[in-house]
Amino acid sequence: MKGKFITFEGPEGGGKSTQIRELAAFLETRGIPVLLAREPGGTKLGEQVRGLLQDDAAGEPPSPRTEVLLFLASRAQLVANVIAPALEQGVWVLCDRFDDSTFAYQGYGRGFDLDALRHLDTFATGGLVPDLTLLLDLPPDIGFARIAARQTDAGSEPDRFEREARAFHERLRAGFLELAKRDPGRIAVIDAGQSKEEVAETVRKRVAARFGFGGEVIR
Amino acid sequence: MKGKFITFEGPEGGGKSTQIRELAAFLETRGIPVLLAREPGGTKLGEQVRGLLQDDAAGEPPSPRTEVLLFLASRAQLVANVIAPALEQGVWVLCDRFDDSTFAYQGYGRGFDLDALRHLDTFATGGLVPDLTLLLDLPPDIGFARIAARQTDAGSEPDRFEREARAFHERLRAGFLELAKRDPGRIAVIDAGQSKEEVAETVRKRVAARFGFGGEVIR
Repeated sequence: MKGKFITFEGPEGGGKSTQIRELAAFLETRGIPVLLAREPGGTKLGEQVRGLLQDDAAGEPPSPRTEVLLFLASRAQLVANVIAPALEQGVWVLCDRFDDSTFAYQGYGRGFDLDALRHLDTFATGGLVPDLTLLLDLPPDIGFARIAARQTDAGSEPDRFEREARAFHERLRAGFLELAKRDPGRIAVIDAGQSKEEVAETVRKRVAARFGFGGEVIR
Repeated sequence: MKGKFITFEGPEGGGKSTQIRELAAFLETRGIPVLLAREPGGTKLGEQVRGLLQDDAAGEPPSPRTEVLLFLASRAQLVANVIAPALEQGVWVLCDRFDDSTFAYQGYGRGFDLDALRHLDTFATGGLVPDLTLLLDLPPDIGFARIAARQTDAGSEPDRFEREARAFHERLRAGFLELAKRDPGRIAVIDAGQSKEEVAETVRKRVAARFGFGGEVIR
């Protein structure tokens, strides 16, 4: 595969979608073809699965095991139909959440066995592993404040995950950091408490260092 | 768990739905509370997942791995919300297809590794295993002829699985028989080429022998 596969992970409120757009713009100035994807969803079928994962869209909530399997079904479709074909064509893929979210949310957060989740995930991805994962780390307090401000602006309601208890979000953060500690060659921890511009610059430097080109912005 | 969990497996055209109704009627004459379920589906969420597994319902077919994971998501929901609660209440559950269909269709049929599928399935079911599985075995030729007759009657079209090549259905049959050979204490092979009445009698005898009561029909 000639393209690079970069995933963005971390809690809500950490600025993942903003930073993905920033990195995409930077890569494009370097002449690198970029494709943006998100989980769950990103395919026609995956978007319908994403719908089933929302609050009672199906008339009943998914059981904890169903939830895991629906996330993985969406991922399998995204890898098969979007990510793998793009990488094969030399396109770089930037993905908003991937398998570390499964390990953090369903493993550390909900208590499913990590090895079992890894087995399931390897089946879903066919063994595809990100070349680089940018973990936008943030203490839950700051994340909550950012989400609240965004929701006040948009007039929207917190979703199921955002309503989870504080303890869950603490476990989630610790889980992401533990994943990074176990796999430091792949996962880069970035302090998402910095300003948007500072985070973007750190992301560019990490990407440039990892893939061997200068991190300065050309534009 | 006080209820018994009985699954019906085998190819289309083997008479599973008819035989499930027959067995349910027999058990009810014995005062046994019975719940009927089917896969995929059987829950609100599972029926929506079932929809995604039909021909291009989502605007694109599921990838082979997505297909496996969607079947398992539907199964996880059915076990958590329907089968396990019923068994705990002493209700007997008769299910039209369960995990042997995954092993036969996706394992023997499509070539996924059986051990990987068993890992995934154990996660989906939380370890629940049928007390008895009735495999309604039929050579593909007879199954095809029965399906064709049924579709002519109903004016309906063959679905995606039914259109699969003949070789697939031969592998499927061999797969089901191999599963039965590996687990003879659980899976009973029944010749579904017999008349409906003969199959029903064989089913009753197998169930009665397995669970320790007479197989004669009371009504």
